[in-house]
Amino acid sequence: MKKIGVLTSGGDSPGMNAAVRAVVRKGIFHGIEVAGVYSGYQGLIEGTIKKLEAGDVGDIIQRGGTKLYSARCEEFRTEEGQLKAIENMRKEGLEGLVVIGGDGSYRGAMALTKRGFPCVGVPGTIDNDIPGTDYTIGFDTALNTVIEAIDKIRDTATSHERTFIVEVMGRDAGDLALWAGLAGGAETILIPEDSYDIDDMVDRLQKGRNRGKRHSIIIVAEGVMGGNELAELIKEKADIETRVSVLGHIQRGGSPTARDRVLGSLFGARAVEVLLTGAGGRAIGMKNHQVVDYDMTEAFTAEHNADMSLYTLSKELAI
Amino acid sequence: MKKIGVLTSGGDSPGMNAAVRAVVRKGIFHGIEVAGVYSGYQGLIEGTIKKLEAGDVGDIIQRGGTKLYSARCEEFRTEEGQLKAIENMRKEGLEGLVVIGGDGSYRGAMALTKRGFPCVGVPGTIDNDIPGTDYTIGFDTALNTVIEAIDKIRDTATSHERTFIVEVMGRDAGDLALWAGLAGGAETILIPEDSYDIDDMVDRLQKGRNRGKRHSIIIVAEGVMGGNELAELIKEKADIETRVSVLGHIQRGGSPTARDRVLGSLFGARAVEVLLTGAGGRAIGMKNHQVVDYDMTEAFTAEHNADMSLYTLSKELAI
Amino acid sequence: MKKIGVLTSGGDSPGMNAAVRAVVRKGIFHGIEVAGVYSGYQGLIEGTIKKLEAGDVGDIIQRGGTKLYSARCEEFRTEEGQLKAIENMRKEGLEGLVVIGGDGSYRGAMALTKRGFPCVGVPGTIDNDIPGTDYTIGFDTALNTVIEAIDKIRDTATSHERTFIVEVMGRDAGDLALWAGLAGGAETILIPEDSYDIDDMVDRLQKGRNRGKRHSIIIVAEGVMGGNELAELIKEKADIETRVSVLGHIQRGGSPTARDRVLGSLFGARAVEVLLTGAGGRAIGMKNHQVVDYDMTEAFTAEHNADMSLYTLSKELAI
Amino acid sequence: MKKIGVLTSGGDSPGMNAAVRAVVRKGIFHGIEVAGVYSGYQGLIEGTIKKLEAGDVGDIIQRGGTKLYSARCEEFRTEEGQLKAIENMRKEGLEGLVVIGGDGSYRGAMALTKRGFPCVGVPGTIDNDIPGTDYTIGFDTALNTVIEAIDKIRDTATSHERTFIVEVMGRDAGDLALWAGLAGGAETILIPEDSYDIDDMVDRLQKGRNRGKRHSIIIVAEGVMGGNELAELIKEKADIETRVSVLGHIQRGGSPTARDRVLGSLFGARAVEVLLTGAGGRAIGMKNHQVVDYDMTEAFTAEHNADMSLYTLSKELAI
Repeated sequence: MKKIGVLTSGGDSPGMNAAVRAVVRKGIFHGIEVAGVYSGYQGLIEGTIKKLEAGDVGDIIQRGGTKLYSARCEEFRTEEGQLKAIENMRKEGLEGLVVIGGDGSYRGAMALTKRGFPCVGVPGTIDNDIPGTDYTIGFDTALNTVIEAIDKIRDTATSHERTFIVEVMGRDAGDLALWAGLAGGAETILIPEDSYDIDDMVDRLQKGRNRGKRHSIIIVAEGVMGGNELAELIKEKADIETRVSVLGHIQRGGSPTARDRVLGSLFGARAVEVLLTGAGGRAIGMKNHQVVDYDMTEAFTAEHNADMSLYTLSKELAI
Repeated sequence: MKKIGVLTSGGDSPGMNAAVRAVVRKGIFHGIEVAGVYSGYQGLIEGTIKKLEAGDVGDIIQRGGTKLYSARCEEFRTEEGQLKAIENMRKEGLEGLVVIGGDGSYRGAMALTKRGFPCVGVPGTIDNDIPGTDYTIGFDTALNTVIEAIDKIRDTATSHERTFIVEVMGRDAGDLALWAGLAGGAETILIPEDSYDIDDMVDRLQKGRNRGKRHSIIIVAEGVMGGNELAELIKEKADIETRVSVLGHIQRGGSPTARDRVLGSLFGARAVEVLLTGAGGRAIGMKNHQVVDYDMTEAFTAEHNADMSLYTLSKELAI
Repeated sequence: MKKIGVLTSGGDSPGMNAAVRAVVRKGIFHGIEVAGVYSGYQGLIEGTIKKLEAGDVGDIIQRGGTKLYSARCEEFRTEEGQLKAIENMRKEGLEGLVVIGGDGSYRGAMALTKRGFPCVGVPGTIDNDIPGTDYTIGFDTALNTVIEAIDKIRDTATSHERTFIVEVMGRDAGDLALWAGLAGGAETILIPEDSYDIDDMVDRLQKGRNRGKRHSIIIVAEGVMGGNELAELIKEKADIETRVSVLGHIQRGGSPTARDRVLGSLFGARAVEVLLTGAGGRAIGMKNHQVVDYDMTEAFTAEHNADMSLYTLSKELAI
Repeated sequence: MKKIGVLTSGGDSPGMNAAVRAVVRKGIFHGIEVAGVYSGYQGLIEGTIKKLEAGDVGDIIQRGGTKLYSARCEEFRTEEGQLKAIENMRKEGLEGLVVIGGDGSYRGAMALTKRGFPCVGVPGTIDNDIPGTDYTIGFDTALNTVIEAIDKIRDTATSHERTFIVEVMGRDAGDLALWAGLAGGAETILIPEDSYDIDDMVDRLQKGRNRGKRHSIIIVAEGVMGGNELAELIKEKADIETRVSVLGHIQRGGSPTARDRVLGSLFGARAVEVLLTGAGGRAIGMKNHQVVDYDMTEAFTAEHNADMSLYTLSKELAI
């Protein structure tokens, strides 16, 4: 193998740049060339591919977003699109590709692999919802962004003796809500993995007030319902006024935390090592404190399990 | 004068604690006692008044929110409520009161003053909308919170080539939107002080794209319209997809910036000095780089003028 | 078991408060009482022990330092001191003790356990140097503090084309230096676990300059040598001017990151569970992504091993 | 005037990039071309001058340091160097120059102006020590960096009942120490503008302890003496152990605060307006809440006066 490519795909997540940097420099370290593909799979089809030197990825490890950009690409879902992508990569001399993104991006990488172009996947998403890895790049940063927001909201909640609902990202996975709820000292956490009991929630709110709590914070993952919807439900059920904060897009951005930079570096480097063995269709992950690689199909066929022990503990501590 | 009180009222704002600390310690420095009134005007009526020592306000200068709490109080708007408040203060030996809050809080302070109980107002609100002072306590912190959010959103906007609408606080005053727009490098700023031109806005968006801008950011003060409403308007008018971020309550909280702590300290101290002269009905402010005191009625009868030169400059620089 | 105590000892670390909160509330959840011991082992001897309710540990999960205070205590090293400690605890009805601190604190806990008073240790130190656990409470926060400092220093280093030496904590353990070096994109990392080669270091500096790098950052753990000493060495050896930043005490403080809050919560809760079984002399940790408990003596007799794969990777990526 | 240049000189300060952006875009807005000079006066002599488009200064308003770099330049102090600089600028078609930097940089700008090449100065330094302006670009950011450091140190100081000495920048000007001391709730502030009284300092420390203060913080500007030197003095005089934190270079970096971005934008824009009138030898500033321009010689001949009312107030509040 003499030259490989790297792209970022799907929603951007902090630490993607650390992974790109690692792919480029680890490749150069092993004597191969590395090219950046701009705007994800769309860039493969349009051929926006550019050789990157060690200096081109300098001063990016601390930046949020992705310097390689990301984009949706309908055309890539077609056979035609995929063949064009491979043609463009071969034209540039690429022999392998590192795809940094979520499970949707992995499907694309698997399709290319099946067509004979070896791809390796690196998990980049704030949702932490990729089966086979305990952590994804960007989760830790998003989590700390949520925590900082909760800390700010708590100032107002305490000053005014109010109940706040904080809506966080997570359509199918409750990891962000779970971790943020435990770390933020929330009374109640609503996640897609569990049904909610509005009576129990109201009961906890009232118990908290009775023991003199000046504020209550409820975390709800967007996949359960919207924050405003929940506020209406509580109002209806128990006539309790709540305030709602929908954190939204700020959860995706920001300078990556140390952990996301380290994770991005470890994953990007391992992806190059795997590609150099000639293997395709592998996904990189962290499993039981070890960097691992595993069959990429597992990442979009197996189920992601949130750590429900955090859920239980959070309830026990929010008394 | 031997003893004075201090309360915080209206929406909490970062730096209020620095002002409370300054009132207490400046009072003690001048040999008088200072009592904290808890939960604003409601605390006056309920008599939740407690003498504060220097140590009681230690370790609070860096905290957001208000350690004296805040609350709405309908009863205080009545004659009965105000008389009860004065009775309670006299019972505690108070001879003057520092009220930290917005213009609504000033009205209450003026009512007490007219009934013979001297009050001095300290401007505490993130909106920066109190006539007679160039800055209010909390504005600088809120502004920096907005800026950090915009910086995060810009990461995603750049990575995905998107247009974002950021809705910030400001029902009647555009200060937060103006400053944040200029400091955040926004293309367009919509403030209550000026009518907006949807065609011009769309035109700017398209020009930016044409010159290769990967992201566009529009700041809208909530007093103009909601962010989601604006998104629909742009969609309708020009078929441009935008993403919306409603910053909401995170704008109120957080550890105060250095400037808000200094402002709180200066204002709190001056309030005590003014009260010690026996004067009531005065408001504290910063005018042309000087700490001043002025007739409190000005603060809720005059009009607040946003600095429109920032508006003009922002347009010139966002080319 | 009806009542247990909790104390913090040794250097403070962010997340200790989350652990204290977890001990108190988990205890209450299981129907036992929990008392806080103030100022570490000194508090045991002086008897500054106070029952804590759920509300007493409210609003502390986000605070740096330790609300239970910490202190050195020579007297506790003596038999007399330890017997007095046990006597005081029995007087208060305590039947077990959770000790949150570093390996020095664990020795004290083991001594008490051997004298018949069951203690469980929770690893609280920014150094991440306790054998038997992959992470200690406070490490993640300290690491991010270091990273933010490096990011700031990089601004100046790039603007002025300079080489900076950043001295970080770590007398015997290089974890902080290693992680920070990798996450901060440092050229060179000096850790106590490895000998340094001044010629290689100078060589790397010069290679970086030759390929157009505008800045170079060297991380040195205090246990290797002081930053200023290293600057002189480089000056002497290669006549290269460097600037030095000794990060010092800021590395200990600050609001804990989400991870340190979660770790503190998990560890504190597990400590209570272990004590409730009647076991003493156990230490809590995170091993291969699982919360575990193990023989406490391991924590101060075994050797802590830094993850040297980070060291290797850092060198490969800093080309 | 058809084309002007802009450079940054002296120590970098956060907000310089906002000023550069404003100069470039305000110039373009007025229909003239703007060129960036790289590495300060050295770039003038070496001719590293490059035309900048609006897009070239996009996405920099939030970055610390200076994208135009800075450097020392001995040669520029000579007549020969200055003539060469003017020659190079004329060769590029420049007719005016905006110099962003401290008072040393202003001297260079004045020299060029006297030789017939009109220059305008924009105050960029974290020291806030330029006569004729109430604020310089970068001061607010540096101040908040210091405050955050003090907040972290306070965690440890409180937990361990310790006295900390924090050494901040400021060789001749005490502004940073003064503001940080007031905003950080320091017991004692030592600034170059006032003699210090070691007995009074020790007295304050002991009084604080007597009233139960768990921590004491002393801020010393580097121009008074080093933090370690002060620690020895206090040890000698009163046998009080202190811990020292030398903040050093982290004070220069970081993403600029909103205020520094606004200040940079306002100053950069005004500089262009002044140059367009054909005037040279003017300095831009903020005076009594107004953007002003004034004779540049004032900036290095008049004396900067720190706001000593902060000094007095700080003492009154640190009781």
